[in-house]
Amino acid sequence: MEFTHFDEHGKSKMVDVTEKEITFREATATGYIYMSKDTLDKILDNKIFKGNVFEVARVAGIMGVKQTSSLIPMCHPLNITSVNIDFEPDRVKNCIKITATVKLSGKTGVEMEALTGVSVAALTIYDMCKAVDKYMIIKDIMLVEKKGGKSGHFIRSEND
Amino acid sequence: MEFTHFDEHGKSKMVDVTEKEITFREATATGYIYMSKDTLDKILDNKIFKGNVFEVARVAGIMGVKQTSSLIPMCHPLNITSVNIDFEPDRVKNCIKITATVKLSGKTGVEMEALTGVSVAALTIYDMCKAVDKYMIIKDIMLVEKKGGKSGHFIRSEND
Amino acid sequence: MEFTHFDEHGKSKMVDVTEKEITFREATATGYIYMSKDTLDKILDNKIFKGNVFEVARVAGIMGVKQTSSLIPMCHPLNITSVNIDFEPDRVKNCIKITATVKLSGKTGVEMEALTGVSVAALTIYDMCKAVDKYMIIKDIMLVEKKGGKSGHFIRSEND
Amino acid sequence: MEFTHFDEHGKSKMVDVTEKEITFREATATGYIYMSKDTLDKILDNKIFKGNVFEVARVAGIMGVKQTSSLIPMCHPLNITSVNIDFEPDRVKNCIKITATVKLSGKTGVEMEALTGVSVAALTIYDMCKAVDKYMIIKDIMLVEKKGGKSGHFIRSEND
Amino acid sequence: MEFTHFDEHGKSKMVDVTEKEITFREATATGYIYMSKDTLDKILDNKIFKGNVFEVARVAGIMGVKQTSSLIPMCHPLNITSVNIDFEPDRVKNCIKITATVKLSGKTGVEMEALTGVSVAALTIYDMCKAVDKYMIIKDIMLVEKKGGKSGHFIRSEND
Amino acid sequence: MEFTHFDEHGKSKMVDVTEKEITFREATATGYIYMSKDTLDKILDNKIFKGNVFEVARVAGIMGVKQTSSLIPMCHPLNITSVNIDFEPDRVKNCIKITATVKLSGKTGVEMEALTGVSVAALTIYDMCKAVDKYMIIKDIMLVEKKGGKSGHFIRSEND
Repeated sequence: MEFTHFDEHGKSKMVDVTEKEITFREATATGYIYMSKDTLDKILDNKIFKGNVFEVARVAGIMGVKQTSSLIPMCHPLNITSVNIDFEPDRVKNCIKITATVKLSGKTGVEMEALTGVSVAALTIYDMCKAVDKYMIIKDIMLVEKKGGKSGHFIRSEND
Repeated sequence: MEFTHFDEHGKSKMVDVTEKEITFREATATGYIYMSKDTLDKILDNKIFKGNVFEVARVAGIMGVKQTSSLIPMCHPLNITSVNIDFEPDRVKNCIKITATVKLSGKTGVEMEALTGVSVAALTIYDMCKAVDKYMIIKDIMLVEKKGGKSGHFIRSEND
Repeated sequence: MEFTHFDEHGKSKMVDVTEKEITFREATATGYIYMSKDTLDKILDNKIFKGNVFEVARVAGIMGVKQTSSLIPMCHPLNITSVNIDFEPDRVKNCIKITATVKLSGKTGVEMEALTGVSVAALTIYDMCKAVDKYMIIKDIMLVEKKGGKSGHFIRSEND
Repeated sequence: MEFTHFDEHGKSKMVDVTEKEITFREATATGYIYMSKDTLDKILDNKIFKGNVFEVARVAGIMGVKQTSSLIPMCHPLNITSVNIDFEPDRVKNCIKITATVKLSGKTGVEMEALTGVSVAALTIYDMCKAVDKYMIIKDIMLVEKKGGKSGHFIRSEND
Repeated sequence: MEFTHFDEHGKSKMVDVTEKEITFREATATGYIYMSKDTLDKILDNKIFKGNVFEVARVAGIMGVKQTSSLIPMCHPLNITSVNIDFEPDRVKNCIKITATVKLSGKTGVEMEALTGVSVAALTIYDMCKAVDKYMIIKDIMLVEKKGGKSGHFIRSEND
Repeated sequence: MEFTHFDEHGKSKMVDVTEKEITFREATATGYIYMSKDTLDKILDNKIFKGNVFEVARVAGIMGVKQTSSLIPMCHPLNITSVNIDFEPDRVKNCIKITATVKLSGKTGVEMEALTGVSVAALTIYDMCKAVDKYMIIKDIMLVEKKGGKSGHFIRSEND
């Protein structure tokens, strides 16, 4: 198994997917933003405010998904056909779980798109809350499931 | 202390920094990408390849810093004046530490720019290595230091 | 009939068009920019100048069409295959009518692309003429025709 | 008074503002999106949904303001320092009024930024509601107030 | 043979490729950046440095290819499927030859993408070396080969 | 004299200009696009068409100038204050000379902006004429004059 993004001399390249078939692709990624109990309470205790923090982060994440190929040098530009981003606050661990699912009917997978969506949504939550908490940490951004393409169905077996 | 990115009705806004003074600003953020021992060995054991993986991720991170205000809805567009992004592989923990430092002479801080630089660099490493390892995890993206502005000098006292 | 851009909990999402068929799509939108008689005369009375105002606005409109999915959060990125933007000055009403027609062979309609093209062209005319007339008004941006897709052929039956 | 965006031969140019002073600038623009009573009711009758339609449009408008100089050919890139976008539904006229206010401490005015913010917010509302109403019309996008710079304080004396 | 990017009245337009077939497309462009012997020596004599100059320029060129339709007004947005950019220093002529090859399975050719990739890579080398040599010149950017589409196989017969 | 865009280990970085003074900056770059006599005649013989080819290329060049820091990895984002792009056809050499002049009051020079403006304008002319002439060549893109900053006034003493 090889680093497909580099040629035999170690030079970077955009992988050639010209000949690949157009198939259904789907990827789901998750990540977390940890914060103080106080910060999480402030987000969750006001219904309008909570809705808006999540809605702004969702819009940012969806728009971020569409910028993936402008941000990650070797990513192919793709006409993604579906994006869902969701948030689950956890009052015990004092964090918000972010989940992004991206779909495509195309020649290459969309795991980078899902990971980018999670990252941008997390950064947006950080930005909106940084005035009250500079100690927030974005953690455990990872691929949890991937369907379609020749590498087959991937489901993460452990969440470390 | 308030969520400055929302008004009294919970509506999002870009914080008004018109009246703020132009001062020197600097922010440093770090993050990590964990991978299998085998993947890290493959990156590090070939000198040219290692150099290029880091150089591609560095370029992506620097360019990502410049896209911060296009990605994060409430971030102000800024004429950042310096970006450094660095990588430290750790053979014990099987990870690569990413550090981004951003400077500005301006009206608002650059912590989001530093955090975005780390995130984009981490995603780029993920992208370049995903053909050999889908289990990589991006961890612990956080602000470690911030200088300038009225909130003063911030140094992270603990690393989570 | 439902707001397709929101899920059952009211959360925004990019509509899933993965399963939709690739068909021929076309949309035409129009809009108007009203100005003083004096301003319109200044644009129209010099042949070179008139040509250039319209040509700059046309280029901006065409490039704007291509930015639609970067501007409108829930729009799908599309490989549009044709854009025409045209201008018709009206000496009686003291306005310029802008018409944009966009085509695509794809999975979703291009009405937002046509509407965005009209809007950016109108804003560009405003920008080029604002030194002589701050009272210009952009009016009546609307979809006039839409072909293709399962919703069928739409022709606007009245013009407000 | 001249078309400052064209030279004496009618060629377009970006106006030279190098020598202009840095002063406080502010601009407010408004616009309207008209729709059927039924569509407006659907937006307004569900509190969560209403909040989210406006929040998505607000985020799009704020991000659109930051793209002004990428969209409008002769606009100067500016480090805008404040953006507010607001929505007022009108149950009598069956429309939503959009107001955008942009501030800057810089060398040129921000009226194009305010007008672009209104336009992108209006287009976003159109996009989110177009599945239920293709007859919506975006109307009367105009500058209502402008402060700062050598042209002085402009307040629109009539609203068309 | 006609200027396809303008209609019969001389107005610019995006050529309508809606009806064209999806076929394999490939284009290769080359260009050169000339510099003083001293500058070229400085680039080539340090192995790490040489690698990094070329890697940064390669990443910029690949990302530039993906921006083609945002830069060139009448270019269609395309989901390019492969990009390779390479550099050949010439110690005799004191220049670096840049070659970009772009592939697509689509409705229109990718020569503009290849030419843009060469141009952005050349500009990036200029930028990285301008502190030591302001006299560098970018020369002879041209299409050398083009496959696919109804115009058939083009191979440049002379390199002037 | 050093390659300022790389640190002592050969790693790329964005040069730190935080401490530099804000001064007046100006840069002028030129370039040429050569074509067949027949192609040049076709551009020049129709007045409207000639005007529009140049106007489209001018708009593209001006907008390209504003994208410089998004295209060239180590370029600083700058609020440029003036751009002029001009075209001079040469019936003897069968080429069009492109000249771009960019101004800024800022901390770093604008030579990359001027060079990028010339490049994008040249690529746009290529795009608009490629249906009639695939043999066009873009030549001799170079800096001709640079004012401001500590490196002083540069005037190119020879034209290659």
